[in-house]
Amino acid sequence: MSKFILSSRPFKSEFIDKIKKIAPQYDFITEVATPIDWQQVEITIGWQKKWDKLLSPDSNLKWVQSISAGVDYLPLSDFKKQDILLTNAKGIHKKAITAHVLTTILMRLRGFNEAAVGQRNKKWQQNVSYGNLEEQKILIVGTGQISQELARTLNLLGNQPTGVNTSGHDAKNFTRTLAISELKNVAKQFDFIVNILPLTAETYHLYDTDFFNLLNPNTTFINVGRGASVDTDALIKALQEKIIAYAALDVFEEEPLASDSPLWALDNILITPHIAGMVPHFQQKFMTIFLKNLESFITTQTVIKNQVDLTKGY
Amino acid sequence: MSKFILSSRPFKSEFIDKIKKIAPQYDFITEVATPIDWQQVEITIGWQKKWDKLLSPDSNLKWVQSISAGVDYLPLSDFKKQDILLTNAKGIHKKAITAHVLTTILMRLRGFNEAAVGQRNKKWQQNVSYGNLEEQKILIVGTGQISQELARTLNLLGNQPTGVNTSGHDAKNFTRTLAISELKNVAKQFDFIVNILPLTAETYHLYDTDFFNLLNPNTTFINVGRGASVDTDALIKALQEKIIAYAALDVFEEEPLASDSPLWALDNILITPHIAGMVPHFQQKFMTIFLKNLESFITTQTVIKNQVDLTKGY
Repeated sequence: MSKFILSSRPFKSEFIDKIKKIAPQYDFITEVATPIDWQQVEITIGWQKKWDKLLSPDSNLKWVQSISAGVDYLPLSDFKKQDILLTNAKGIHKKAITAHVLTTILMRLRGFNEAAVGQRNKKWQQNVSYGNLEEQKILIVGTGQISQELARTLNLLGNQPTGVNTSGHDAKNFTRTLAISELKNVAKQFDFIVNILPLTAETYHLYDTDFFNLLNPNTTFINVGRGASVDTDALIKALQEKIIAYAALDVFEEEPLASDSPLWALDNILITPHIAGMVPHFQQKFMTIFLKNLESFITTQTVIKNQVDLTKGY
Repeated sequence: MSKFILSSRPFKSEFIDKIKKIAPQYDFITEVATPIDWQQVEITIGWQKKWDKLLSPDSNLKWVQSISAGVDYLPLSDFKKQDILLTNAKGIHKKAITAHVLTTILMRLRGFNEAAVGQRNKKWQQNVSYGNLEEQKILIVGTGQISQELARTLNLLGNQPTGVNTSGHDAKNFTRTLAISELKNVAKQFDFIVNILPLTAETYHLYDTDFFNLLNPNTTFINVGRGASVDTDALIKALQEKIIAYAALDVFEEEPLASDSPLWALDNILITPHIAGMVPHFQQKFMTIFLKNLESFITTQTVIKNQVDLTKGY
């Protein structure tokens, strides 16, 4: 009886060939046909809610390779209970998300948001705000791989951002880091605040009414982490009442964002539909992680790249 | 009788004090009151059409310091006839224009233009185009100070653009340059074509129907030089018929762009209202040029920074 690698998405044949070479005892499948026994699935690439049979006690699922970096939407406690290994796709998206955040900052600094309103209304309106990137005070909340790549890029362009992490420990490419316990004390000093944290119990609604009320009215808030780190109602109020100047959001508490969400109606917001992490050559990059883990899993039943701590959630 | 420095715009008192110290025999004025004799004006900062009296044979105007880098809109042949020195503000705008062009390129590469359409229609629409900056083939037409700064910045971000200038001579920060006579032969190889040329008789309608027809359909055309380097009707047709994919225009043949211009109605265009060169701390940067020239002018009646060749027009 074959064992299966069940994937939530197809891959090019060149990658399936590589999988077959490393793990000839497994078949790569993208959907479970009726006669296939769920018990044959030992590995998944990605995850779908309808796969809950794989969490039952008689399942043979041993390893889930997530397609994303964040794993907050996965049944982590079930994985833990069943001793299922989880690896994520951390590291793949850092250049894309860095480019996305850099774009949102530059759009603010070069008057593109005002120009977009002008274009929509067919109006030549030169009254735009502008500033130098070098002079902006940028706070990056989270100092993981994506944040480090963003800091590296900002450094190249003459800006030294401040990082925030659990304890204020040093982080690559950051000249200054602060502990998250300091966040509310320092937030008002910054022109841009960029959230790149994973979603955990600790970061749920981290950005709430209290937080926004502390900021200076010039602040731009950027979220490319997870939507639920923000209390959306509090942010809407902060934007409506100009408690902060602007927000650029790529992630939302509810996705897709409902067409009747009050966020769409705001004039001081940039909404992108969770595209910051979209990566050219995704399959190739993803497979460098998966194939390394597959080699290891086949020989020693362990994974060596990007294993997630199921208690911490990242 | 006082001699005047006539300025088209006001400056902070700290700068007027510096002018007075260098040139105590001159008064700085911003508008000619009725009793003032036009013959008292020897220097202008900027230019206004209504100042044509300064071009008459009995005028004492000796030097015009332009506030912009481009001087195509000034009466160059009159300046030449009257032996009036002209200096421009070249070098001030390079960082701003670089940031502007980088923003337009990144917006294309990270799906921001599609996201803007989605936001306008309150639609979550993830079908956006994306690409890596490193892999883009970028052609910068013009290799002057602004283009060199843009090339330097692109180099930092992993991209090596190609430059175009009169003869294909070497230019700082460019690994490859081509002569403008080659432009139509090579244009189809590029994903982005950025015009940063001054407007002269040679560059008027350089980008015409023939040119756009040569491009590959994926091309984005960016203009931060001068509007009249583009045959606007030809560009509109190229965009309407998807002969090229996209345009990002900051300058136009007619400015302000009329509200009934067909450009506004296109869905594959980014229009900004001639803001690319807007510079934080403009007065300070401008004065580093003007005051150096003023010192020189007072002592030797010559200028030392940014003198324009009145025949070439730049």
